Amino acid sequence: MVEPRVYDAMSKPIVGHLDPFFFEITQAVKTGLNTCFGTANEFTVAMSATGSGGMETAVANFVEPGSKFLVFASGYFCDRLIDMGKRQRATVIQIDKPWGETWTPEEMREAILREKPNTVAYVAAETSTGCWTDGKAICEAAHEVGALVIADCVTALGSMPIEFDKTGIDVAYSCSQKGLGCPPGLSPFTVSPRALEWLTKERKSQIPTWYFDIKLLAEYFGGAKRYHHTAPISMFYALHEGLTVIAEEGLENRFARHRLNRNAFVAGIEAMGMEMHVHRGHQLWNLMTPKLPEGISDMAVRKHLMDNYGIDIAGGFGQLTGKVFRIGIMGVLATKRDTLFLLEKFEEALRAQGFKAKDGAMAAAEAMYATSGS
Amino acid sequence: MVEPRVYDAMSKPIVGHLDPFFFEITQAVKTGLNTCFGTANEFTVAMSATGSGGMETAVANFVEPGSKFLVFASGYFCDRLIDMGKRQRATVIQIDKPWGETWTPEEMREAILREKPNTVAYVAAETSTGCWTDGKAICEAAHEVGALVIADCVTALGSMPIEFDKTGIDVAYSCSQKGLGCPPGLSPFTVSPRALEWLTKERKSQIPTWYFDIKLLAEYFGGAKRYHHTAPISMFYALHEGLTVIAEEGLENRFARHRLNRNAFVAGIEAMGMEMHVHRGHQLWNLMTPKLPEGISDMAVRKHLMDNYGIDIAGGFGQLTGKVFRIGIMGVLATKRDTLFLLEKFEEALRAQGFKAKDGAMAAAEAMYATSGS
Repeated sequence: MVEPRVYDAMSKPIVGHLDPFFFEITQAVKTGLNTCFGTANEFTVAMSATGSGGMETAVANFVEPGSKFLVFASGYFCDRLIDMGKRQRATVIQIDKPWGETWTPEEMREAILREKPNTVAYVAAETSTGCWTDGKAICEAAHEVGALVIADCVTALGSMPIEFDKTGIDVAYSCSQKGLGCPPGLSPFTVSPRALEWLTKERKSQIPTWYFDIKLLAEYFGGAKRYHHTAPISMFYALHEGLTVIAEEGLENRFARHRLNRNAFVAGIEAMGMEMHVHRGHQLWNLMTPKLPEGISDMAVRKHLMDNYGIDIAGGFGQLTGKVFRIGIMGVLATKRDTLFLLEKFEEALRAQGFKAKDGAMAAAEAMYATSGS
Repeated sequence: MVEPRVYDAMSKPIVGHLDPFFFEITQAVKTGLNTCFGTANEFTVAMSATGSGGMETAVANFVEPGSKFLVFASGYFCDRLIDMGKRQRATVIQIDKPWGETWTPEEMREAILREKPNTVAYVAAETSTGCWTDGKAICEAAHEVGALVIADCVTALGSMPIEFDKTGIDVAYSCSQKGLGCPPGLSPFTVSPRALEWLTKERKSQIPTWYFDIKLLAEYFGGAKRYHHTAPISMFYALHEGLTVIAEEGLENRFARHRLNRNAFVAGIEAMGMEMHVHRGHQLWNLMTPKLPEGISDMAVRKHLMDNYGIDIAGGFGQLTGKVFRIGIMGVLATKRDTLFLLEKFEEALRAQGFKAKDGAMAAAEAMYATSGS
């Protein structure tokens, strides 16, 4: 769901891609994104591509041919990072867990100290599993061995804290259409001074992509305003408006709102006798993955919700095909009213398929709102 | 200038990137783009990137590492093709002309038969010079030596004929914001069956980019509808509406309208005693480059037009810095009224800077409309 005022912003007349007004917009976008990422980075832009374009930008700039690229892999988008690393002709080391699980700080540390990679990537918020991975131990160990750290923040940005600087991340990317509540089309992208220095001074081979070349983009969005490509102006208007909406609510309030609705939904799910796929403490604040109860068709439940209420929830895929639902509660829909409505109709759809839900789901969710607990 | 109804289309609520409605849109976009390109290609899409992203897609997919890449170079965007070819680690052969000139069919043929490249690229419509290059001789010679041909159509698509199939082009790309009259953000892209077959059967090395991988995109936009990236839905709405506007006018009518206004403007320019930089027969139909008269400041002329009338014309850059104006007359602005207004105010601005314009510019332009000559 996109805020009406964000749609309105897109219908405003465009200016040129070298117009001072456009650079006012990009400056405001940078400030807004830095707040969401939790960073003071100088290089923060919206890439003229969708989230996967941001991922490719990260890998193409910060993974050199022949270098060692370590990826913590427990979901679909980890696999995409691995694919991209291979295309960069890096030696890819893959540290696996079943989809939806994550690593202990000791496991992270041990893998990095053992492999001594040049670049490490992890998916902070994995869209395919609903799992959050805290990268603090990754960043600490990586920096000890002189490696850079890439964090995929596609689902999380704008809905839960990333804490880029505090965690010690070097490169992070996201998308415009999830936590930020805008239409898809841009990829927020931020680079630490340390990684930028590596790129300009230590990277040996030429960056293999022109469109995603961070050094050229730094000249365009930075002080020089040197023409690179023609940015999608209307999308920048949308992102600017979306970030304004976030600033008006206050980022901390927005985070708390998402967490509260997540907590209420999970309380309801567990009260009716279902389990969450991701362990408590690692669940995203805006994407929930309840396990599919045995004998229930996820397709039938999804169809019930779509046909009767226009509610669109997703199923699992890859390792989680037929094992979980994937339910986003974010942006304008992360409200008590919408969350309770969703929970009620979800239970109804499950019961219609023969699931013996325990009573009390709605009460459990309501109770969570009453205490506003975390 | 963007049509108001195209802006309106962008403010429509988005659907999912795997929604059947979205694929109806992409199918209509394909049909509309094929008409503009003059092709019956099966693979025609809008890339989720701006025009330069289309250029990178062409080079990354169809220029292999270690292969021979011949570029006909007489403008800024030719240089970008060369840059991208080098990033693909190809051996780049550059056939130079001064900016704004083009090659005879014999010169094209001779260069290709001599060099026997694997891939040839040329810029059909060069934005930096206003020059049109007809690629027929390039395509014939290239196919004789088994090479693929890439044509940059960024400025031309939707304003003048490309004749992709008739010319024998293999790969062409464009942008959404020039001849098609939409906001920037998508890159129309089309591939001949021959080039697609080369890509799937003969290319030896892995495509080095995931985001711009044509084989993966063929699975997404083609029959399988297999998830690749999250397409910028709103931009597709815009392009779809822009193509509908074009279809309503009729493509041939639209081409004729651009050519007539180009002819009228050029007649006026020459009547006042100025010269065009590009020779007759090679001038684009929507971007004109009159030579800057000696002793006149292009900056002052541009400022006069902008300050007094909000008219935005560009100067030359690169080899043409201080040598030409670059004046676009396209889309909704390619009308008799707007063209005559522009001509009148352009003459006024030149006179204000001391240019001794001959009388009769407006009459010469009017005469062109009266005869509707080509």
